[in-house]
Amino acid sequence: MTNATISYDDLTNASANAVRSAIRKGAYTGHTAGLAAGKLQCNLAILPQEFALDFLRFCQRNPKPCPVVGISDNGDPKLPTLGHDIDIRTDVAMYRVFRGGALSEEVTDISDVWTDGFVTVALGCSFTFENALMRNGIPVRHLETGRNVPMFKTNIDLVPAGRFGGQMVVTMRPIPAEQVDTAREISRRFPQAHGAPIAVGDPAQIGIDDLAVPDWGDAVDIKDGEIPVYWACGVTPQNVLLDANLPICITHSPGHMLIADVAEDAETTILT
Amino acid sequence: MTNATISYDDLTNASANAVRSAIRKGAYTGHTAGLAAGKLQCNLAILPQEFALDFLRFCQRNPKPCPVVGISDNGDPKLPTLGHDIDIRTDVAMYRVFRGGALSEEVTDISDVWTDGFVTVALGCSFTFENALMRNGIPVRHLETGRNVPMFKTNIDLVPAGRFGGQMVVTMRPIPAEQVDTAREISRRFPQAHGAPIAVGDPAQIGIDDLAVPDWGDAVDIKDGEIPVYWACGVTPQNVLLDANLPICITHSPGHMLIADVAEDAETTILT
Repeated sequence: MTNATISYDDLTNASANAVRSAIRKGAYTGHTAGLAAGKLQCNLAILPQEFALDFLRFCQRNPKPCPVVGISDNGDPKLPTLGHDIDIRTDVAMYRVFRGGALSEEVTDISDVWTDGFVTVALGCSFTFENALMRNGIPVRHLETGRNVPMFKTNIDLVPAGRFGGQMVVTMRPIPAEQVDTAREISRRFPQAHGAPIAVGDPAQIGIDDLAVPDWGDAVDIKDGEIPVYWACGVTPQNVLLDANLPICITHSPGHMLIADVAEDAETTILT
Repeated sequence: MTNATISYDDLTNASANAVRSAIRKGAYTGHTAGLAAGKLQCNLAILPQEFALDFLRFCQRNPKPCPVVGISDNGDPKLPTLGHDIDIRTDVAMYRVFRGGALSEEVTDISDVWTDGFVTVALGCSFTFENALMRNGIPVRHLETGRNVPMFKTNIDLVPAGRFGGQMVVTMRPIPAEQVDTAREISRRFPQAHGAPIAVGDPAQIGIDDLAVPDWGDAVDIKDGEIPVYWACGVTPQNVLLDANLPICITHSPGHMLIADVAEDAETTILT
């Protein structure tokens, strides 16, 4: 049940602020890929403040899957370093509320759930480097074919902090062999968006059994002359939060990101 | 009074571990500029854990003066993501202990002061990008002339968090006009070490009265054809800590940095 009245196509040329405004009113509840072109989009982790210090430690120790781009004050729904007038209770199109480590509800507004005890942590997202790859003539298969990026659990241990830990989740994109070095060089320029690849080539080296069977998202074809390239994935912190079995935490729903006013290729993610 | 028995010259070809070992034994108490070439050196902030979350928020919001490269667990003197077997109580050559916002003592070992309530935050340092400038043929005046870099208070407001805030401190390096763009491009590659310049040219634009009268460090000559270039400085967090008037906090003494085992040009500051 939704009162959504604005379509994706209506928003394709809208500003970040206009997209957030449509979302805030409940008029748009769809995904945000490709909206507000050039602006930083963010993964979201909202958690009780008593876990925030350990979660920030965890993110600092695992910067490729968990690049922190914004942190709220305790109980403050604003994120002034990421955008003008962001209200994190209403400005994301779809949220997932987890209680005791299990999905409890998926909602378009968390005003009813919000308490003064929450801290919001915003994390960078792969949209940023995918846009840069495409600007540089490197194809991104799942976007070409209208699919979701394939995501895989790996055997790469994360550096733990407090109750946060586990294994890294990666995305896979097939890249023409002669463009792998360029893809590495370009994505490395975006430490706020997972940076350079974690691995290239044989999936077995990082504990992936079968590239045709992703743990999340859609399988994509790997053509002759292409090599599978693996990047750290923003689903990692979501999984880690789930496994941490917090009394409550909130994330965005996959693909429904927070859109910031910060340019995605800015040197820092702090609005000036 | 010191039992220092090893000179700077004795250590010029020593590994990071060997330098830390000499420091740990109290055999070396000097500055670390130029030692363990190629390894990351770090500014240090040790503070009571109840202030750590706000301090990390402050650093995230001010990434150019305060690039976080390591965070300890509560009360743990180890920093395993920065180096093998680092003990932060002994592995820095000179510490400053502040109590109630004032310098209390300068010591070569903080084992007596250490408590289970401390958190260590390590921050990047300008040595990293200075080395990169020199490798690329850009002169660094204060190093050429054997001086300390000139540092200045500015009127650039920091983004506050909790009791942490104030104005940015910058360093100034005169750069030949035709190399300013290259210097910007090179230093931007090191977000863990203050990144690209904050300002270029007229000191008045950032509230500096007289480049011949630095607030810390030594004045340097600006030759014909050179332009003053300003970078965010690691003295900023030290000043902010001082102004925050904490019951106790500990920093390194200027120039006496923590030497990590991480390569200074690594993609992340996490040891793998």
